[in-house]
Amino acid sequence: MAQPARNAASAHRILPEPPVPRPPGEESLDVWGFADSGFRVNAAGQVEFRGARYAISGKVIPSLLPWAETILGVALDPADRHASGYPTALPPRLANESLERALASRLPAERISTDPSVLLRHGHGHTQEDMWAVKHGRLARVPDLVVWPVSEEEVRLVLELAREHGACLVPFGGGTNVTDALRCPPEERRTIVSVDLRRMNRVLWIDPVNQTAEIQAGATGLEIEAQLDRHGFTLGHEPDSIEHSTLGGWIATFASGMKKNRYGNIEDIVLSLRAVTPEGALAREAAPRESVGPDPARWLFGSEGQLGIVTSAVTKVFPTPACRRFGSVLFHDFESGFAFLHAVQRSGAVPASVRLMDNLQFQFGQALRPERRGLAALKGRLERFFVTRLRGFDPARMVACTLLFEGSVDEVAAQERAVYRLAARHGGMRAGAENGERGYQLTFAIAYIRDFMLDHYVLGESFETSVAWSEALALCANVKQRLWQEHAKRGLPGKPFASCRVTQLYDTGVCIYFYFAFHYKGVENASEAYAELERAARDEILGSGGSLSHHHGVGKLRQPFLPRVFSPAALAWRRRLKASIDPENVFGGGNG
Amino acid sequence: MAQPARNAASAHRILPEPPVPRPPGEESLDVWGFADSGFRVNAAGQVEFRGARYAISGKVIPSLLPWAETILGVALDPADRHASGYPTALPPRLANESLERALASRLPAERISTDPSVLLRHGHGHTQEDMWAVKHGRLARVPDLVVWPVSEEEVRLVLELAREHGACLVPFGGGTNVTDALRCPPEERRTIVSVDLRRMNRVLWIDPVNQTAEIQAGATGLEIEAQLDRHGFTLGHEPDSIEHSTLGGWIATFASGMKKNRYGNIEDIVLSLRAVTPEGALAREAAPRESVGPDPARWLFGSEGQLGIVTSAVTKVFPTPACRRFGSVLFHDFESGFAFLHAVQRSGAVPASVRLMDNLQFQFGQALRPERRGLAALKGRLERFFVTRLRGFDPARMVACTLLFEGSVDEVAAQERAVYRLAARHGGMRAGAENGERGYQLTFAIAYIRDFMLDHYVLGESFETSVAWSEALALCANVKQRLWQEHAKRGLPGKPFASCRVTQLYDTGVCIYFYFAFHYKGVENASEAYAELERAARDEILGSGGSLSHHHGVGKLRQPFLPRVFSPAALAWRRRLKASIDPENVFGGGNG
Repeated sequence: MAQPARNAASAHRILPEPPVPRPPGEESLDVWGFADSGFRVNAAGQVEFRGARYAISGKVIPSLLPWAETILGVALDPADRHASGYPTALPPRLANESLERALASRLPAERISTDPSVLLRHGHGHTQEDMWAVKHGRLARVPDLVVWPVSEEEVRLVLELAREHGACLVPFGGGTNVTDALRCPPEERRTIVSVDLRRMNRVLWIDPVNQTAEIQAGATGLEIEAQLDRHGFTLGHEPDSIEHSTLGGWIATFASGMKKNRYGNIEDIVLSLRAVTPEGALAREAAPRESVGPDPARWLFGSEGQLGIVTSAVTKVFPTPACRRFGSVLFHDFESGFAFLHAVQRSGAVPASVRLMDNLQFQFGQALRPERRGLAALKGRLERFFVTRLRGFDPARMVACTLLFEGSVDEVAAQERAVYRLAARHGGMRAGAENGERGYQLTFAIAYIRDFMLDHYVLGESFETSVAWSEALALCANVKQRLWQEHAKRGLPGKPFASCRVTQLYDTGVCIYFYFAFHYKGVENASEAYAELERAARDEILGSGGSLSHHHGVGKLRQPFLPRVFSPAALAWRRRLKASIDPENVFGGGNG
Repeated sequence: MAQPARNAASAHRILPEPPVPRPPGEESLDVWGFADSGFRVNAAGQVEFRGARYAISGKVIPSLLPWAETILGVALDPADRHASGYPTALPPRLANESLERALASRLPAERISTDPSVLLRHGHGHTQEDMWAVKHGRLARVPDLVVWPVSEEEVRLVLELAREHGACLVPFGGGTNVTDALRCPPEERRTIVSVDLRRMNRVLWIDPVNQTAEIQAGATGLEIEAQLDRHGFTLGHEPDSIEHSTLGGWIATFASGMKKNRYGNIEDIVLSLRAVTPEGALAREAAPRESVGPDPARWLFGSEGQLGIVTSAVTKVFPTPACRRFGSVLFHDFESGFAFLHAVQRSGAVPASVRLMDNLQFQFGQALRPERRGLAALKGRLERFFVTRLRGFDPARMVACTLLFEGSVDEVAAQERAVYRLAARHGGMRAGAENGERGYQLTFAIAYIRDFMLDHYVLGESFETSVAWSEALALCANVKQRLWQEHAKRGLPGKPFASCRVTQLYDTGVCIYFYFAFHYKGVENASEAYAELERAARDEILGSGGSLSHHHGVGKLRQPFLPRVFSPAALAWRRRLKASIDPENVFGGGNG
């Protein structure tokens, strides 16, 4: 090994059991998520959520389509479906016989694939363009080969063979990215090998004294948490994609987790990493904090597969918190809720997660409520009466803030006191732990809705930014207005759904998440129309002082905007870095 | 400008007054610090601290030399001084007439200097080798020219002229670095221009809503705090060199401040920066947090003058805390104190600063007590009696922890309760706010002691590392033992002074600061002997799991150790970055 050994603290390390293998076919190929879950119209013509995985699973959701009809200003017939053409035609495979022979002689056959469905799945993430392409369009280029290394040595082997045989590599983690980062450059004439890290999914060790762990890059959030939890620890990193996205993907995209207030974003959690690069192995011991000049390992953050393949990382881990409580607060309008968020951030008593939904998002959450009967239905009507009639909340203006507190019993109690005191000062009404928990749980279910709505001629997508406190409200208004204008200008059907939430608080500003959808029946090139509107929204975001991305990354989707956020010298430095480190462009994914 | 304008929040910005110009000659050239301050032997043969700047100023310190005699095992005659030969001979100046003519035609004469004392001062920092060289040795190479730009445009001009006329640039901030980073490469045959940023010392604006400020890179900590304080803000960054070191220097060395638990280290505080580089200007808008791939501006952190010149940065600022309280706790031994630190970090209630001195440092602090007479002396004796006799603290084993709490009245009260409860559990005895404050104030005075002791044939220096919790105690013991061994092996006079303190806490470990000194009267090549022992200590640190540097940086002093902490690929990436960005090596300081 390149790296000399230190007297590393190993005596007290825990060596966790490997994760339970996930059953084949557990994840859908053609839509988001687990194959056992998802929205559908049942035999009775009602929307329900399949499976048993989430709180909403097995429930009928009577209000969803009626509410969507109102908001989108169109009729949605549950029986009228835009049938998915998945899998759409694949481009011809670009074989490289010498490479394939060499790989076959070094890796077991079951860890190399040229199966068309496998190639297709490795050629996209989860943007609307990606999902449209695999259902109603086509992907111009997909990997020609997928390999599953199980060790750093095998990753190095794959890189060496790729160089020797003139192929190009694209690392693959959870396949969840939303920036077209996994789209293969159509003009690439070399064989593209997708290097799928998912078999490298172990927590290698946990150090309970220093609260660190070494984790393989292909482990998903679920796998990591399961392995840590058995020993009383958590990573604390919870992106909305935690079920499917991987540690390596988080690093390569600069991921953010919803509980970052307590545990930090990915760059705070990861202390050091190992990576296989054209130059050799990057490998370092983790230090609590250092001053040793630029650390090339940090250049892998946000590198989107362009510089090398992260194989493992040493991370912080945290004791599973003794106390975990949800909360929610209703505010009369978005502005009051936003002022509350600002006050919470300034108070220093910031819960693990704080999210503020605008009125449309709040309505959306209500529309996703499962059917309630008998007493539960009565209770719901009474609550509504209390909130809207007695307390004067306007259903067309009110917003909701969901809260998640984690820590010791004392910490949580102190934060709750401080936060609810501030909420009251901003006209907030406590709406209970149950509604807060529901809000967070819906995050996972909502990820499935895009594919369902697409079947019903509604194209939807989310995108995010970060922005200074002082600019945030104007940015929200500007972006929504721009989307309405662009929608109208093109004469698209009905009305657009343009909504936002504040999902992260920082000392100097916030992360804002937009949701945008429209009905596309009868629209020619609907996916391109959507893409145009999203670009317009991005233009508006940048013009309103927002960043190019808070945590989704750049990929190919936002690449054209890079000159608006980096000076020419900065762009030149990025190009030079790539050119000097990977002169053959082995990592030819074309991102960043 | 390269950077397109955003709708930046400027309406509510505060434009502070420029700082009061500092009087010429305020800082010493030949020793550390302000010219009005420092230790000396007075007419009565007593050690006293000159001036009126610090709590210790104007006081007689009767115990210092007697205590040092005991510890070093040698006699120290106050009258026996090793006379400083400052300024030692300068190497011949390497003129570049065409460059000098070009500069003279563009900059006022008072902002260009070839004065030998100015050149000398710009050719070193404050390592023992530096100070030895200017007093008892010589510097092999110093800058040939010093310029003081007052704007980013002028920095760019200097860079352009340097390239045009084949000169080499070395940025200069406070001149306080302790890694030989300012030593000029002796083999450099081009004219070396020292670019002194100290005239760029303004806080350009403060944004009170988003709590940000833009600050010029040449502003010292004192200047920054003075400009911010008038408007109710603080940067919160307090390295021990805060009086003299600059924002640009902090960035270029990855500085850490003693209150980082509350305000963060320099990489947390700085949101974005502007820099002049061979490629052009790096310039970005600051975002609360981003995911836009590698940001070249971050590569300036720890760049030690090798990639460009930082001209300004947008930083976080914080409201001046409502409450600021010191504290101190005595523990029976270093191990108990260390266990207390670990418990404090795990509690989550970490004060702005927590420092643990070992027994020798504690003794040192006692030896620096000004003379007390009458009631004060009696009180001192009674305290000592109470602590050592009644409470059973062993003067040869006891240690002290100093604490600084900052925040709201409630925050401070809650932290104090939690911290003192943990202290009691570890056998700690509260020793009052006064002793805590004294500890922190001494930090500034102690910086002057090295030059004073050098005059009395004692060579001393400090160096730091960071290390995992589990390895820290062993590392401290190993390093001290190694220093004693190496000292004995060389037959150096008396006994070495080898002592340490823990100065920073992190989730996964701590920063440890060593102080090392020995008596060198009659020793040949004393400075080289010291350097050898320091290298041995560094070897021991690395072998014990410590990092190469926590916050001093690498410079030239620690450069030979880089292959022990970076893999060959990582070192190659660093070289490639430098070579591709500055192919002419205009920034030829030779660090990193």
